[in-house]
Amino acid sequence: MTPEQIKQTLEALIGKDRVRLDGEALDIYGRDWTKIHSPKPRAIAFPRTTEDVQKIVQFANQNQVAIVPSGGRTGLSAGAVASNNELVLVMDYMNQVVDFNPIDRSVTVQGGMITEQLQAFAEEQGLYYPVDFASAGSSQIGGNISTNAGGIKVIKYGMTRDWVLGLTVVTGKGEILNLNKGLIKNNTGYDLRHLFIGAEGTLGIITEATIKLTRTPKDLTVMVLGVPSMSAVMEVLKTFQNTMDLTAFEFFSENALAKVTAHHQLQRPFETATPYYALLEFEAENEGVMDTAMQLFEECMENAWVEDGVISQNETQLQNLWSLREFISETISHETPYKNDLSVIVSKVPEFLQAVDTFVEETYPGFEIVWFGHIGDGNLHLNILKPKDLDQAEFFEKCHQVSAKVFAITQAFGGSVSAEHGVGLVKKDFLHFSRSPEEILYMQAIKNAFDPNKIMNPGKMLDS
Amino acid sequence: MTPEQIKQTLEALIGKDRVRLDGEALDIYGRDWTKIHSPKPRAIAFPRTTEDVQKIVQFANQNQVAIVPSGGRTGLSAGAVASNNELVLVMDYMNQVVDFNPIDRSVTVQGGMITEQLQAFAEEQGLYYPVDFASAGSSQIGGNISTNAGGIKVIKYGMTRDWVLGLTVVTGKGEILNLNKGLIKNNTGYDLRHLFIGAEGTLGIITEATIKLTRTPKDLTVMVLGVPSMSAVMEVLKTFQNTMDLTAFEFFSENALAKVTAHHQLQRPFETATPYYALLEFEAENEGVMDTAMQLFEECMENAWVEDGVISQNETQLQNLWSLREFISETISHETPYKNDLSVIVSKVPEFLQAVDTFVEETYPGFEIVWFGHIGDGNLHLNILKPKDLDQAEFFEKCHQVSAKVFAITQAFGGSVSAEHGVGLVKKDFLHFSRSPEEILYMQAIKNAFDPNKIMNPGKMLDS
Repeated sequence: MTPEQIKQTLEALIGKDRVRLDGEALDIYGRDWTKIHSPKPRAIAFPRTTEDVQKIVQFANQNQVAIVPSGGRTGLSAGAVASNNELVLVMDYMNQVVDFNPIDRSVTVQGGMITEQLQAFAEEQGLYYPVDFASAGSSQIGGNISTNAGGIKVIKYGMTRDWVLGLTVVTGKGEILNLNKGLIKNNTGYDLRHLFIGAEGTLGIITEATIKLTRTPKDLTVMVLGVPSMSAVMEVLKTFQNTMDLTAFEFFSENALAKVTAHHQLQRPFETATPYYALLEFEAENEGVMDTAMQLFEECMENAWVEDGVISQNETQLQNLWSLREFISETISHETPYKNDLSVIVSKVPEFLQAVDTFVEETYPGFEIVWFGHIGDGNLHLNILKPKDLDQAEFFEKCHQVSAKVFAITQAFGGSVSAEHGVGLVKKDFLHFSRSPEEILYMQAIKNAFDPNKIMNPGKMLDS
Repeated sequence: MTPEQIKQTLEALIGKDRVRLDGEALDIYGRDWTKIHSPKPRAIAFPRTTEDVQKIVQFANQNQVAIVPSGGRTGLSAGAVASNNELVLVMDYMNQVVDFNPIDRSVTVQGGMITEQLQAFAEEQGLYYPVDFASAGSSQIGGNISTNAGGIKVIKYGMTRDWVLGLTVVTGKGEILNLNKGLIKNNTGYDLRHLFIGAEGTLGIITEATIKLTRTPKDLTVMVLGVPSMSAVMEVLKTFQNTMDLTAFEFFSENALAKVTAHHQLQRPFETATPYYALLEFEAENEGVMDTAMQLFEECMENAWVEDGVISQNETQLQNLWSLREFISETISHETPYKNDLSVIVSKVPEFLQAVDTFVEETYPGFEIVWFGHIGDGNLHLNILKPKDLDQAEFFEKCHQVSAKVFAITQAFGGSVSAEHGVGLVKKDFLHFSRSPEEILYMQAIKNAFDPNKIMNPGKMLDS
């Protein structure tokens, strides 16, 4: 079917000017943040309703046209790339609040609502949507659910999965399912909602979601602690977590701190330089909590798990301390980093990090590693910086060799080759490092049940 | 295959004296707490390891023998009943701790570990397993996961689903899968772990589970409040929940309170009688929390949402107040109640309760209704008491007519016909009130993928 034929047929179904074929649209909506694959979509459709989406999917089934669902296109695994003549289904115009109820503390939104819009809506209602990450200004809630997005508050609030009370989806076969209907308790058979969460659009399209909100955190306070070793980081985590409710527990290495403070002309948190830094956040809603935090800090100092530390006294200081962690990614982007998003169980982090460090140092002595991540969740972002004198193509070729070995180390530690970024095209060939052949066969069987004509995001996550 | 042949073949695989055919075993292991169906199993097998379970499942596939997985047999939906010549696979001897790690705060246990054992193990480690309910002394963790058990702390801690970091399962095809491996973050394709949670043993058998633990709650404190109406109960919930972290929010009606206090010779919480009572629990770890709670209580009094109230000052008072709620089920068991476990979204509870009340009053004027439940989760336990002068058979026949209408009302409110008890045999014919025909077809397709020979708990939840 030619692009023109698609436009003509689809516009008869969902309305005039709802399909674009122009070069600008093909370029914008055919790619995500990965920028590895060249966009090459056939046409771009802009539905307004769940029924529009259903009509598009039914059309695609009848005419064997592959669909790529497209949200905020902020993905880092090429899950929303259209490089193979697909029809891109853009959710941008499905961004409305459908329903809100203050007693249930739940809001039903269309899949195209931007994460920040949802956070702002919650705030207007005196409530809080706690899933937060760097791309919140562009990412859409349907995409977040489809990749089970994580971020910086997982230690207290969990992943996107934990905030989904209900989903309206259009399956690959073109049926509309209302999954779980916003209920907290509902034990009536297999929970299909959880299949669609993290499915990266391979089973169908999320058109609406009922999202749980929670109370706003009070008097957030940040501590940054200088820690002499990764095993000490673990002791600090254990000490605080067994007594307090932490809202974040992040870490970064001394070279990360040095780069951030230099690049952004920020002050170091304190004079002492230590190999690692832990950033803790918690609600200090009264004196009692602050007293507890100070006692635990002293306990850590006495045990030599911490060498120095600082605590925020106001909102500005809190933001400044968070900047030390949050600006890392942007800072090192100037050094063409090779990145990986890995996880192991928390207690194995020190040994895992050491194994990766040793491998890289021995194999590529000139490569500099910058570590940071959500260590309270076992999620490490590995960044290897390009040596200045090395050609970029050669660097990336060497990094591909690094990848294979790093994934093998991850597998040996029982870890995940994609902690929070999903599989898409980028990690598909490495899926077997984290999932067994039997699991992959079951995934394919499930895919076939929901999408027998293989029109939903084909080639992403699984081979078609 | 005769029982003797099964015993002989299986004991060659898993060891001598691991299969019982005696009448006592057939009677004990063929039933659960429902006591509606007569037990009629063919043989009872007692595996010790995941590999034993795998051998039994492979044997069952080769010989077309149906398996009923059996945990603590405390289910209320006949999910573990063997009344059709099945082989019962008993998990009682797989009750060991496999691994524990204090930094991860996770414990890996075999599926046959009893809930109370797990709670006690957590306590010994200075940690806490928060899923709790009346049958914790007998129910097993594998069964809890297979029914996604809920209970009295869901408002803060969620369902069993929320505490499962990893599962080892033997599928209906006889493969061993290690699902999610204890990771907090792992976005590598469909989360099969969540399919097995709540699957009631129809996809396979959970042989090991990695369970998340959390810090022990501090200074738990209970308030019981007298509330004039269900809409006021909603306002009380909203007022407290938007400011404090509640660990429980339960409710019961005046007639429930009257029966409990009379039957157990307990004191009423206060003089004032009100149509409904709310029981709130929270951690009062310092003066600040208690001050906040008292301010919110006064706000509720000023708005006439609450007419009277009491707060526990020590552990004994806390237990006494909890008894008012927890003893209801046992108290009314003497009046042969007809029970249903329903849920709607929280904000619809008052209207839903009114609709059921009105229907029962109009249709069966002599029937007394006792309501109680986990109202913070929208989960209501409906109990209709047998009038003294009515014949039991006639009462139950009328109640069956009540069921059909109550489920229709539940459906009209977008609710669940089984909030936390599962489907099993008891609710199977009513599944369509909560799940669409398309959803049921997808459930059957998933069942076929994991259990193509239909040997895993056939006839439970879905028709074979």
